[in-house]
Amino acid sequence: MAKKLSRGVAVVGVGMSKFGVFPEKTSRDLFVEAFQELMQSVQKGFNPNDIEAFYMGNFTSDYFENQSHLAPIVANWVGISPAASTRIEDACASGGVALRQAMLAIASGDVDVVLVGGLEKMTDLPGAKVTDALALAADSMFEIPAGFTFPGFYAAMATAYIDKYQADPDALLRVGIKNHENGALNDKAQFNQTIRSVMTGKQKKAEQKGLPIPDWQDEMAFLKDPKANPMIAWPLRLFDCSPVSDGAAAVLLVSEELADKFADEPLFIVGSGQASDGALAERASLSEVPAAALASQQAYEMAGIQPDDIDFAEVHDCFTIAEIMASEDLGFFPRGEGWRAAMEGRTARDGSHPINTSGGLKSKGHPVGASGVGQVVEVWKQMHGLAGERQLRGNLRYALTHNVGGTGQTCVVHIFEKRN
Amino acid sequence: MAKKLSRGVAVVGVGMSKFGVFPEKTSRDLFVEAFQELMQSVQKGFNPNDIEAFYMGNFTSDYFENQSHLAPIVANWVGISPAASTRIEDACASGGVALRQAMLAIASGDVDVVLVGGLEKMTDLPGAKVTDALALAADSMFEIPAGFTFPGFYAAMATAYIDKYQADPDALLRVGIKNHENGALNDKAQFNQTIRSVMTGKQKKAEQKGLPIPDWQDEMAFLKDPKANPMIAWPLRLFDCSPVSDGAAAVLLVSEELADKFADEPLFIVGSGQASDGALAERASLSEVPAAALASQQAYEMAGIQPDDIDFAEVHDCFTIAEIMASEDLGFFPRGEGWRAAMEGRTARDGSHPINTSGGLKSKGHPVGASGVGQVVEVWKQMHGLAGERQLRGNLRYALTHNVGGTGQTCVVHIFEKRN
Repeated sequence: MAKKLSRGVAVVGVGMSKFGVFPEKTSRDLFVEAFQELMQSVQKGFNPNDIEAFYMGNFTSDYFENQSHLAPIVANWVGISPAASTRIEDACASGGVALRQAMLAIASGDVDVVLVGGLEKMTDLPGAKVTDALALAADSMFEIPAGFTFPGFYAAMATAYIDKYQADPDALLRVGIKNHENGALNDKAQFNQTIRSVMTGKQKKAEQKGLPIPDWQDEMAFLKDPKANPMIAWPLRLFDCSPVSDGAAAVLLVSEELADKFADEPLFIVGSGQASDGALAERASLSEVPAAALASQQAYEMAGIQPDDIDFAEVHDCFTIAEIMASEDLGFFPRGEGWRAAMEGRTARDGSHPINTSGGLKSKGHPVGASGVGQVVEVWKQMHGLAGERQLRGNLRYALTHNVGGTGQTCVVHIFEKRN
Repeated sequence: MAKKLSRGVAVVGVGMSKFGVFPEKTSRDLFVEAFQELMQSVQKGFNPNDIEAFYMGNFTSDYFENQSHLAPIVANWVGISPAASTRIEDACASGGVALRQAMLAIASGDVDVVLVGGLEKMTDLPGAKVTDALALAADSMFEIPAGFTFPGFYAAMATAYIDKYQADPDALLRVGIKNHENGALNDKAQFNQTIRSVMTGKQKKAEQKGLPIPDWQDEMAFLKDPKANPMIAWPLRLFDCSPVSDGAAAVLLVSEELADKFADEPLFIVGSGQASDGALAERASLSEVPAAALASQQAYEMAGIQPDDIDFAEVHDCFTIAEIMASEDLGFFPRGEGWRAAMEGRTARDGSHPINTSGGLKSKGHPVGASGVGQVVEVWKQMHGLAGERQLRGNLRYALTHNVGGTGQTCVVHIFEKRN
């Protein structure tokens, strides 16, 4: 049954910090950067005192920064106290769920101007501790004692997918190549270079040092060389995994009636869905993510559109296989066709279904709580012709964001429309 | 400016586990107990599959149970997947804020039937680690390095209050005595005995062991004996502090249109407010909590009523001074009168402004994420004549709940109305 919101909600500004490794900055520092960029992006300007509520996606500042209760602290840091400030935690989907709660709060009639934030500061801990922290997103009673970490989970899903559809594992590498090509054109990306440039960089370095020059003919050869791209958990190699990142992103939402007061060209949130699921072992199939399919159905029904109406999407490519599954869960391609679409370039910027023009989590970075909010930044940029060299051509009307927590215990999908 | 919700929201059922120390149970086990009691309390019955969304207040399962992303796990545990499941974290106000998000989600039109949960499993860690975990609710950059823990924060507030109003510190002890008298009548309370019975119990034990029998004449003498009630941080003694607890609570909300389908006597949420603030050191005064006053003003305006219309309230008495400040922040008594009202019994069950008939956090227990949800359980029980020996007399129409995070960085207030 399609639900209707009591009133409409619009995006009127966005901002983000650079994603990367910033030992000298706290998460609140990074959020200040995002908020300052957001202030600039609101076309008609606004007074921060107008912000009535703040929803902040954050996975586990508890672990990463020894800090819970971070929402009112961050609100105070950017000067919007006493705005009602709430931390939303749904693991890697925290940002997307924060966006959804902000939308619902405005639709409820209680508030008109709401700030959405996402942030995570992950790189202060040593690597093994980061793995421990990320494992908190899985079931600590059943999944973690069984020896799983997240690369292992997604490797199991990739294996099931490849087996079920007799997919070519090269499709995974193609996703990584595409996302790095996009991220190379995004100066906010943690790895803003192509795989080819990584490859030629390594070749040049070898030459300078007088070492034998590896004779990789192309990126595919480079990515298949276990010395260049070591196996993490078969079939996932290093370049199939999104990085550990610091970063923050911010989005300003207002009620539909106020949209024109803030922006010449607001975006409207016309679809939203969220669904949950049990642990991976409880699912009938490992080769798809049911909660993502369900959340997208809810969003399409609310928007009254079909998957083919979506002009471009930012999806949760924590691992390359996740993007392929998402492209099916969201209905862009039939089941079992996602890997082929990736091979054939149909998800590239000039393809029929552009995915992750920002570079995605893979190249842009994955500061967990910020990722779902950062997706909206890319939607705004593409919709307003601000995406520079990675700008999509043609008229853009509908965009979709897809944010996943864990292996799909939480999925949240939003659809945005540009009306003029 | 008073806000109107786009549509009304009703409470149609409640449940809670016993609060206490349960080494053999996880937080999800405790929530199952709360949910089962809730199922029984829904007067006309319901199918758990009707639940579309789940908002779960939890402070830091990250620390206490090595588990983030707990909302979809708990949803799965009680059998309500794929309901959209979201963890809300605002320290000790997590439960009250979860209630508020659930209310806003229904008011938005997106969902009709929403489960609110609150849970915390705190007692698995050794005491010093619990203190570390609770400190995550304060500012880890500025407050914790200055040497503060929560008893210290509230001791500073108590000192400021006593100094400003020349208050009698005995008022603090009176709050504890009253809340234990109420909690002694609540079989869900962690400490369900009066201070007097604690005192006589110690006297009997001494007698049995042939030791000198302490000659405490009354509870006040007992509470002033530093051996019986040691000083924690002046003027707060052991019996001024709420305990470390395990527990869970659950509330079922539905849209106003559906209320009669679920309950013969639904309660309506007619007022809601939430506000944030900076760290304690940034405030103009330590003897009040501005965010609580602001949140209650929002709630009163939404409800269109005055503080004197409230028949009874559950307030956040994490320390006895917090209840006294709350009784002023909420407008029950003028500034500087709260301590006198406590001394004179005006907040007792037979007083003009009954507060914490459940026993409050002090006697009932304070499983952080559950506390704000547990308050609604008491409101339901009192409003439906189910409070047993602690039942308030007379016609009860309006009740208020007040939930505080940290030292007031987050405050959330709700007002409930019984209409028939």
